[in-house]
Amino acid sequence: MVSPVNAPTAAILVIGEEVLTAKVVDENSPYLLKELRKLGVSTRRVEVIPDVVEIIADRVRSARLAFDHVFTSGGVGPTHDDVTIAGVAAAFDVPVVRSQAMEKTIRELCAKDFHERDLRMADVPEGAELIYGEGVHQSPWPVTAKGNVYCLPGVPSILRRKFALLRDRLTASPFFGRVIYSREGEGAIAHLLDQTVAAYPDISIGSYPHLDRLDHKVMITLDGRDEPRLEAAATHLVGLLGNAVTRVE
Amino acid sequence: MVSPVNAPTAAILVIGEEVLTAKVVDENSPYLLKELRKLGVSTRRVEVIPDVVEIIADRVRSARLAFDHVFTSGGVGPTHDDVTIAGVAAAFDVPVVRSQAMEKTIRELCAKDFHERDLRMADVPEGAELIYGEGVHQSPWPVTAKGNVYCLPGVPSILRRKFALLRDRLTASPFFGRVIYSREGEGAIAHLLDQTVAAYPDISIGSYPHLDRLDHKVMITLDGRDEPRLEAAATHLVGLLGNAVTRVE
Repeated sequence: MVSPVNAPTAAILVIGEEVLTAKVVDENSPYLLKELRKLGVSTRRVEVIPDVVEIIADRVRSARLAFDHVFTSGGVGPTHDDVTIAGVAAAFDVPVVRSQAMEKTIRELCAKDFHERDLRMADVPEGAELIYGEGVHQSPWPVTAKGNVYCLPGVPSILRRKFALLRDRLTASPFFGRVIYSREGEGAIAHLLDQTVAAYPDISIGSYPHLDRLDHKVMITLDGRDEPRLEAAATHLVGLLGNAVTRVE
Repeated sequence: MVSPVNAPTAAILVIGEEVLTAKVVDENSPYLLKELRKLGVSTRRVEVIPDVVEIIADRVRSARLAFDHVFTSGGVGPTHDDVTIAGVAAAFDVPVVRSQAMEKTIRELCAKDFHERDLRMADVPEGAELIYGEGVHQSPWPVTAKGNVYCLPGVPSILRRKFALLRDRLTASPFFGRVIYSREGEGAIAHLLDQTVAAYPDISIGSYPHLDRLDHKVMITLDGRDEPRLEAAATHLVGLLGNAVTRVE
């Protein structure tokens, strides 16, 4: 499976003891995967890791060097298990500092129910950028970004609102895709997929057995950034598959 | 957040180009997280990675050294994108060899629709164990295990059947858990959680804001393997929280 050429890449790090202990099912990585895909960003890694500073630091460091964008989700509240900012700071070898701008915002927004401890949410890695968004997506509560690492909250509804602040800066060229359904099983068509993979190395081709469908046994996906090349690869494979094709989407 | 003492640990590696490209939402890691938890196994890492031999090898190597059990899902069929076995073999620095037993099984089970290519599914890392299960969970089609790495298929219904073959060997001592709901927000109770974390370092304590509930603002979870210690920690925290507690589960 080749990765589309020139696509900006991303990693998603879910900082989620609650996911690892099966208390909640992670909704954030499926959401981010889908939205990033729509924006033309190719996610190459998803990890769920515990709320441990050293582990977060290690995995953020690895991801920030390997990919264009890194998104963390979770661990940015005011309690003892909120250690994402410390982990991201460690990944960049910088200290955690208090943002005066964020402190002001928190004191204003939380005025009627303010607790000193809430100010932990004003802590950022030194040199962090605060992204407030633009136009309709503007928010008084920014996304904290350090370099190419964006720290998003764990609560799904808030994560979605915060992600909106980042859309403009993430938009890349889009992906194109085709899906071919085969009534023959994988064993029977594997050599035809091989031929297509060899002839179109710039197109990602996936093969997924569907066991419980009446009209097909395998779903074959083709993805690429060059639409004419994608069409050519799909036409090529449909030609090879012949009568095995039940439909093309 | 501390990990429960003496719990066997696990990592889950989803080998899933289709998940990374947002074609399907991963059902396998939520299933495995839940089932492992029930068996008393503490999962400390989940990763979704692409169908690339070098990446699979690297991540399997890292996980097999760091955790007691490693489960891979996906990439074990007969097509070009099924490279999990090659990745696992590379992680152990052994070659891929054809299992005579598996070849015989495939020729029998696939007799009426056999393709030479199906025999790729008889390929295993050298020295692999074939696990057929016992009693009601017996299956003619085994799970391939190399050392502490279990290779499961990507199709969710088959993964579940295959995981059943492994249950007996995974069972550990169980976890115990309590959930406390607080009508006060995280900022107001964070110092009380800190006190409890300090007094009960062997109990995992999590704090999760719920924004849309009428009767509480925060869900607090306590987990441990020693039931009396867990009860003591819960009683301690309920005492500190006082009127903030809306209910305990």
